[in-house]
Amino acid sequence: MTKDYIGKVVEIKGKNDVFSGKVDGCVLPNENKGLVVLKLKSGYNVAIKQENIDSIKVIGTAEKTQQKSKSNLEYKSNAGLPKVGIITLGGTIASRVDYKTGGVSSQFTAEDLINAIPEIRDLANIECTSLMSKFSENINKEDWITIVKKLDFLSNGKYDGFIITQGTDTIHYVASALSFMLEKLGVPVIIVGSQRSSDRPSSDAAYNLLGALTFIKESKKAGVFVAMHHTTDDKVIAIHLGTKVRKLHTSRRDAFKSINVSPVALVHLDLRQHNICKNEIVFNPLYYDLKDLNKEKLKVSTKLGSGVSLLKFYPSFDTSLFEYVLKTSKIVIIEGTGFGHLSDSLLEIVRKYKNKTIVFMTSQCIFGRVNMDVYTQGRIEKEAGIISLEDMLSETAYVKALYVLGKTSKPEEIKKLMLENMKGEISDRTLFTE
Amino acid sequence: MTKDYIGKVVEIKGKNDVFSGKVDGCVLPNENKGLVVLKLKSGYNVAIKQENIDSIKVIGTAEKTQQKSKSNLEYKSNAGLPKVGIITLGGTIASRVDYKTGGVSSQFTAEDLINAIPEIRDLANIECTSLMSKFSENINKEDWITIVKKLDFLSNGKYDGFIITQGTDTIHYVASALSFMLEKLGVPVIIVGSQRSSDRPSSDAAYNLLGALTFIKESKKAGVFVAMHHTTDDKVIAIHLGTKVRKLHTSRRDAFKSINVSPVALVHLDLRQHNICKNEIVFNPLYYDLKDLNKEKLKVSTKLGSGVSLLKFYPSFDTSLFEYVLKTSKIVIIEGTGFGHLSDSLLEIVRKYKNKTIVFMTSQCIFGRVNMDVYTQGRIEKEAGIISLEDMLSETAYVKALYVLGKTSKPEEIKKLMLENMKGEISDRTLFTE
Repeated sequence: MTKDYIGKVVEIKGKNDVFSGKVDGCVLPNENKGLVVLKLKSGYNVAIKQENIDSIKVIGTAEKTQQKSKSNLEYKSNAGLPKVGIITLGGTIASRVDYKTGGVSSQFTAEDLINAIPEIRDLANIECTSLMSKFSENINKEDWITIVKKLDFLSNGKYDGFIITQGTDTIHYVASALSFMLEKLGVPVIIVGSQRSSDRPSSDAAYNLLGALTFIKESKKAGVFVAMHHTTDDKVIAIHLGTKVRKLHTSRRDAFKSINVSPVALVHLDLRQHNICKNEIVFNPLYYDLKDLNKEKLKVSTKLGSGVSLLKFYPSFDTSLFEYVLKTSKIVIIEGTGFGHLSDSLLEIVRKYKNKTIVFMTSQCIFGRVNMDVYTQGRIEKEAGIISLEDMLSETAYVKALYVLGKTSKPEEIKKLMLENMKGEISDRTLFTE
Repeated sequence: MTKDYIGKVVEIKGKNDVFSGKVDGCVLPNENKGLVVLKLKSGYNVAIKQENIDSIKVIGTAEKTQQKSKSNLEYKSNAGLPKVGIITLGGTIASRVDYKTGGVSSQFTAEDLINAIPEIRDLANIECTSLMSKFSENINKEDWITIVKKLDFLSNGKYDGFIITQGTDTIHYVASALSFMLEKLGVPVIIVGSQRSSDRPSSDAAYNLLGALTFIKESKKAGVFVAMHHTTDDKVIAIHLGTKVRKLHTSRRDAFKSINVSPVALVHLDLRQHNICKNEIVFNPLYYDLKDLNKEKLKVSTKLGSGVSLLKFYPSFDTSLFEYVLKTSKIVIIEGTGFGHLSDSLLEIVRKYKNKTIVFMTSQCIFGRVNMDVYTQGRIEKEAGIISLEDMLSETAYVKALYVLGKTSKPEEIKKLMLENMKGEISDRTLFTE
């Protein structure tokens, strides 16, 4: 029924207590037959159950997106602007979106995306590369190596920064991987995603890109970052450190949060005047040691180890499963409860494999810091050989363990490297505890 | 060195840039030799590294806690007040604390705790039972059964509510377990913990207890709840629904958060006038269907199944480990990325064990809701037999699966029961999506 309405601006009338009154907007494509999805004037999407709808009346047609994109070649480069390489991997962001009207077209090229956002031309000269087209849940460590090799290949001093676009689901894993694997890096590399699915288009892709580009143009900082919405509106984009960020909501635009630290910077977007961006960056003063842009030659590591498992402990955890994991892994990252605790039954197994498998502790609380000194159980765990990873995120710890195993197989070196704060993955212990 | 200072009020002078100036407070017992832990007048604890200390001067002795507790029998019961059974399981809360001075005594009885808080006598007539003394990471499903049996034994209509105290680490697991296992329940059962360790005492145990007792006295509601600090100060205690709460910080007092919903109620503590509690409860209107206190006879389930595994998916997840888990489990709860996604490599294994193992999907984002209709991958997952648990927490899902396996082994019934919203574990899909 709704198929015929796609792209039309309609007024929908509710028929019951759940949805009474009227609402109008542009009907978007949507896979769930029981729902009608509207793009409102506010830019938000709204889903209404068919069963609550009294009537749908067409009141207009959505503004069309530009039918034919100009080729990138038609744009003259602006000598005063940074040159930014955009590498696309697939994901939600890889669908063409007119971010002002909410119209959508099915075919995507990176250039289409750029051409849909005129403000970009004020911020950077862009070159696009489509490296792969994968759902982010299928992007694995071999793909991380491919990305690093591509960056290494492109890094001939020609670029002032890179943007990598991929599906949001595993952005924090790839951001950690690049943080470690791009060992020396003189420019910013920013991962950007979009929380709106291709069949429920809206603007966050464009705004996240503009935030990332503004950061590259204005900040003069080097490192691996993630640029995503800071709030649910489109006004502020957060720039997160690649090793300290996590997806904390399935669907919100501001799903990505820096954990135990604040974002590196907030980019306040100001797009009021067409084609003139007046974006502003507010830096977090705590990141005083952020690396400046420099001419350092990129140094990469393209070797990742294997045999790392990440597990969450829970009551009555099956001991034979735990033993299987310890038997078959070189490194186990275990998300303990609270300050980093495991049951006695699992500790016994850790002790048994003490000389074979290295066990690192993170916390399933996500926020806060592992501390195995507070309770007796923590001290027993230390005696069993378990090593606290302080406030390192479990996901970052998993990725770092793969990276470290690419460097060494010696237990003492592994332990030393895991605890070395390489890329801000461990935040400073404060003088005062709560 | 600091051992001699324990219980003394001292003034400590710093000797370097990390810690300069002076601070004074009562020295608390503390296991880490490199640290001196002080209780400040504000009620907060502070840890100072030995290496930063210039000098320690004794300036007084901490106010002593009451040396001998009155036996509970010495108190006359107040006929106008509810009768509350407190069942202690161990944990941080199980250390005697004078919550006003911060003095600490090593020996704990539940009665000591009660006697240390005069306000309690205004709120309820208390009877204490010490059921076990375990670290919460060692409390397992057999213990949950023990607790339920004890509640069943005590539930002769004599009690107007129960409070269970245990270590905070696994409070959300036990709260879920009791939510399902106490199938029919006419009174409130509230789990209370304390985020301060026994060697770093402070007040949250007492305040959380007062919050729980106020809720029992004033709310006239039945169900399983968790009472913990809503904010880091001691003014507001949140009452969370047992199936929707999670520990989200290793150390903060307000570590427990309701996920995807608001707390059931907030208890605003007002203890300004000694011995007269003027606490106020603010209910969340969204919980309009909360059960009223009633005379319904307690109905319990004391059978829990086995063979449930909870796993988090991550990039390059080892396929043989995943196959081992599917081969050895009856039910697997998998925390997918984003809306609930797995890599193709794992999906292949899910398909292989489709007729043997039931796979339920939650999201590692924690906040938000699994939705396998948005992306192609989700739809492929549904075809592979994976079932979305909507916005059920992974921990709640794990516990519920054990409960459901205690009821039935028939796949269709298992699926039906897991998706039945028994105790508010799935929150309503809202009319409007973002």
